[in-house]
Formats: sequence, structure tokens, C-alpha cells
Amino acid sequence: MSRVVFVNGEYLPYEKSKVHIEDRGYQFADGVYEVFAVIENKLADYDAHINRLLRSLSELNMKLPYSKKSIFFHISNIVKQNLVTNGLVYLQISRGVASRDFKFPNNTKSSLVIIGKNMPLDEYTNAFDKGINVSTTRDLRWKRVDIKSLNLLAPVLAKQAAYEKQCQESWLIDDDDFITEGSSSNAWIVLDETLITRPVSNSILNGITRSTLIKGLKKRKINYKEAKFNIDDIKKASEAFITSATQHVMPVVRVDNIKIGNGLPGPKAQDFRAAYMESLKLTEI
Amino acid sequence: MSRVVFVNGEYLPYEKSKVHIEDRGYQFADGVYEVFAVIENKLADYDAHINRLLRSLSELNMKLPYSKKSIFFHISNIVKQNLVTNGLVYLQISRGVASRDFKFPNNTKSSLVIIGKNMPLDEYTNAFDKGINVSTTRDLRWKRVDIKSLNLLAPVLAKQAAYEKQCQESWLIDDDDFITEGSSSNAWIVLDETLITRPVSNSILNGITRSTLIKGLKKRKINYKEAKFNIDDIKKASEAFITSATQHVMPVVRVDNIKIGNGLPGPKAQDFRAAYMESLKLTEI
Repeated sequence: MSRVVFVNGEYLPYEKSKVHIEDRGYQFADGVYEVFAVIENKLADYDAHINRLLRSLSELNMKLPYSKKSIFFHISNIVKQNLVTNGLVYLQISRGVASRDFKFPNNTKSSLVIIGKNMPLDEYTNAFDKGINVSTTRDLRWKRVDIKSLNLLAPVLAKQAAYEKQCQESWLIDDDDFITEGSSSNAWIVLDETLITRPVSNSILNGITRSTLIKGLKKRKINYKEAKFNIDDIKKASEAFITSATQHVMPVVRVDNIKIGNGLPGPKAQDFRAAYMESLKLTEI
Repeated sequence: MSRVVFVNGEYLPYEKSKVHIEDRGYQFADGVYEVFAVIENKLADYDAHINRLLRSLSELNMKLPYSKKSIFFHISNIVKQNLVTNGLVYLQISRGVASRDFKFPNNTKSSLVIIGKNMPLDEYTNAFDKGINVSTTRDLRWKRVDIKSLNLLAPVLAKQAAYEKQCQESWLIDDDDFITEGSSSNAWIVLDETLITRPVSNSILNGITRSTLIKGLKKRKINYKEAKFNIDDIKKASEAFITSATQHVMPVVRVDNIKIGNGLPGPKAQDFRAAYMESLKLTEI
């Protein structure tokens, strides 16, 4: 089956899905995005992702180019037409096409792209059973990473640096030597039987999976704390995790050359994942 | 005459100049660019711009997708085919098209776009005669602005903020309250008869116009100094300027609500501009 992409009002074959060279997403990273997990044909935490999208747009003085109802309709169509069972929907909105000039153009319609993709479930399960390796690097990102924008070159370089060290994720270190978050995930450690993740600010993205996991932790009365942590804390941690829409809750078994616990996913991994899974909301398409 | 754009090996009508939605320039700001001034059908400081482009590419572990000779050929063609007399050439290289994943793709060919545009000379002259207004704002950019990359959302927001205050440029203020540079230009003030601009580091772009002006200042034995300056220094400045490929040397007559000198371009403006113009190298196409 050939893939179909939604681009500015049209459903196009993947290969022919194009945008203009003067789209501000291409020249200025002037746009935002969301990644929605698809779990057994349903959308995970749909409303929370849409609300974050609206916030990102608002921070950049942009608007949704279609009604919320239309957006849901097109996302659903992309899931259906691409037979996405377990995977993701990637949705990107840029400020649209205009002759290159840093300041916002007048009366330009935003561009909207929606892509759907299956992700093999067994790949996720295998990774969960083994855990992933993380490397750390300086956080070089801009100062508004609370906006889920296209301004992603720093995370690209961080992820690549991790990959070159046989790691699957990079944890970013701020000027005060605390971990902010992963290059495309939130970071967690278990210290003194308490799950710790950095509080929300302009220095991290307010992760939807992060919020849903916190809901689940509360329900299960699992100890957690929103606090900064650094490399010394990681050295003392018994377990570690990342959370993201596509990685859900994923155990981390090494950070740089530090083995976490015994170097295998720890005893709390299954509980945390279950806490997440039972708290997320699934929306029928 | 309809405009022609070079896109990945083809000369296309402007309206039909498109790139794939999964071009990494569109999803990750994963690419670099240069703006070449065209002055009377010639390219200004061409070699310096190409050398900076090569450095930007190298810092991102990218390569020029064509030989230097081919790049020059295509740039020249774009100038000729679009009848650019005075204006600019915008050249952008992204890491190419690949299924979305933060880490670098394997064996993907970079994308290359070249656009040519005339810019009315009288607009520049009018602006030079009046001078421009600048507003200041926090420097929210990432920590590798020495790379001329597409990661430009912070300068976009800064320029828009300036525009909303009836200013033409924004000067960015670092965590220590010093000016780094303009959102798309370098910043200069005249203090105690000495022209001052911030030294080159990872905190500013190494401007080609900046370097050429410094060469001109040396030739004319005009006092200058590479040093940081802040708002207090601006308050004491007798003149101020920005430099960029398209703005050349442009007088600044107000910063926030501070009038510089008597609020008109100062006595040194013509000299500095002449020092720049006589030191730049023009390349025949």
C-alpha cells in the first residue's frame, strides 16, 4: 500500500508530498508540531496533545489553520488511509509561504502537514526488555523549548552524538550542571525509592506522557517528586527512565558509562509502564 | 518576467519550486544558508561567503552537494535568469529528505535551493539617509549561532518584536546584559571616537560585512575595537550601526527610546560606508 500524506488541504501520495521552498518552516523553523501515539487504532491522549499544540501556536502568535473538528477528521483519515495500527501521527504547522523576511508576513495562511506511520510493536517491546543507553551532552537549545517548535537543530546534534556512542537517547545538561531532559523525551531517575523528574519551566517541554505518568503515579500512590537532578544523583540512582509519546515509559540502563542498578531494567519498570498505560486516554477515530 | 529558482538540480518557476515534506530543513531546521549581496550584477565577497558556508556545513557534518565550481555556475545563472542587478542571492542547503528521525540519516543527498531577488537601491539609500530604529530584547537563541543555520525561530521572534515597536532591527542581550548582535546583522557603536563591535565567538555570527568593514577601517586608520558593550555604553554612544550583507553599513539613530547622537545619521556614517565599499571584493558572474 502506498502512503498518503495530508498537505494543505490535499491527500497526496507520500512521494509527491511537497511544500514551497519559501515556506517559513523551511527557511526559519517558524512552526510547531505534535506527535500523537496510535495504540491499537486509537489516539493516545489526543485532547492533551491538541491543547499543547494550541498553546505552542499561541506562543508564536499563530492560529490553527482549520477547525479542531477538521483537524481531528484529517488525523483520523491519515490513520485509516495508512492503516496505522500501532505507531504515530506527526502533525506540523508552519507560518506559511512568504517572500523571505524575518518578521511575520501579513495574511499568510499557515501550512499543515499530517503524516501517519506504523511502528513495529515488537521493536518497542524488545527495547523495553533490554532498556536503552543514554549519553549526556551540553544543552545547546534555545530558551523557549517549552514551545514544541521546529527549532530542533540542537536536539538533532545531541541525538546524533548519542547515536555515535551506541546510545539511543541524549540527556541535556544545563549551565548549572543539572539534566534538563532528553533530546526528544523527558528524563527520570529513581533515587531513595522516589521517582524524580525536572519541574516544568521554559527549560523543558511539558511532556504529555510525563503528565499522564504523574497521574498514574498518584493513582497508584507511588512516591514521586518534581526536582532537578545531576550526574551525581544519576550515579546513586537505582533505576532511570525516559518518557515520550512514542517511547511511552522506557527504562534506561546506562548513562554515559554509569551502569544504572544492575544494568538491566529494574523492578519498578513494569509498574511505571502500567501506571502510564492505565492513565492514558484513548480516543476512537 | 517570471522568477526562476534552482532546486536540487532543476531550474523551476518560483511558484512550482517545492521540496519534500520530509526534507530535514522543514522538520528539524537541519541545514545552513548564505545570503550573497549582488551589487551592479556582481557578487559581493563571494569567496568569504562560500568559505563561511563550508565552515557551517562542516560544523554540522554536512558536505556541499555540488562542486564549488557548479555552485558558482548555478548562482551566476540565478542572477542572470532573474535579472538581478542590485539585490541578493539566498542559498540554502539542508541535510536532505529522510523518514523523520532526529539522528542523521544514512546516504541522503543534501537539498540545495538558490533564489535571486532584486532589492530597490533607492529603498536602501532612503534608509541610509534617515537611519533605522532598533529595539532590544533578550537573546533567546541556541548556543551555536556561529553556525549560519536554519535554526532561526528566536531571531524571527526578535525581529517581529522590533517591528511591532516601529523598529527595523532588534539587538539581542545576553545573560550578562551585553549586546550580542542584531537578529540578522552585527551591532556597532561609536564610543569615545572609537567604533566598537563584539568579538567573534559562539555567541555571534562571524559577519562577512563585519570583517570587510574591519579591513576598511584598518586601511583608513580609523579607530576601532572588538569589545562587548551594553545599554549604558549605548546611552553614551555618539553613533551606532548595523552591518549585514544586504544592509551593508546602516546607521542606527535610536535604540529603544534612546536617541543616538542627535537622532540623525552621524558624521562618520559616510566614512564607514565608504571604508566598507572600497574593501569588499566584487566577483563578475
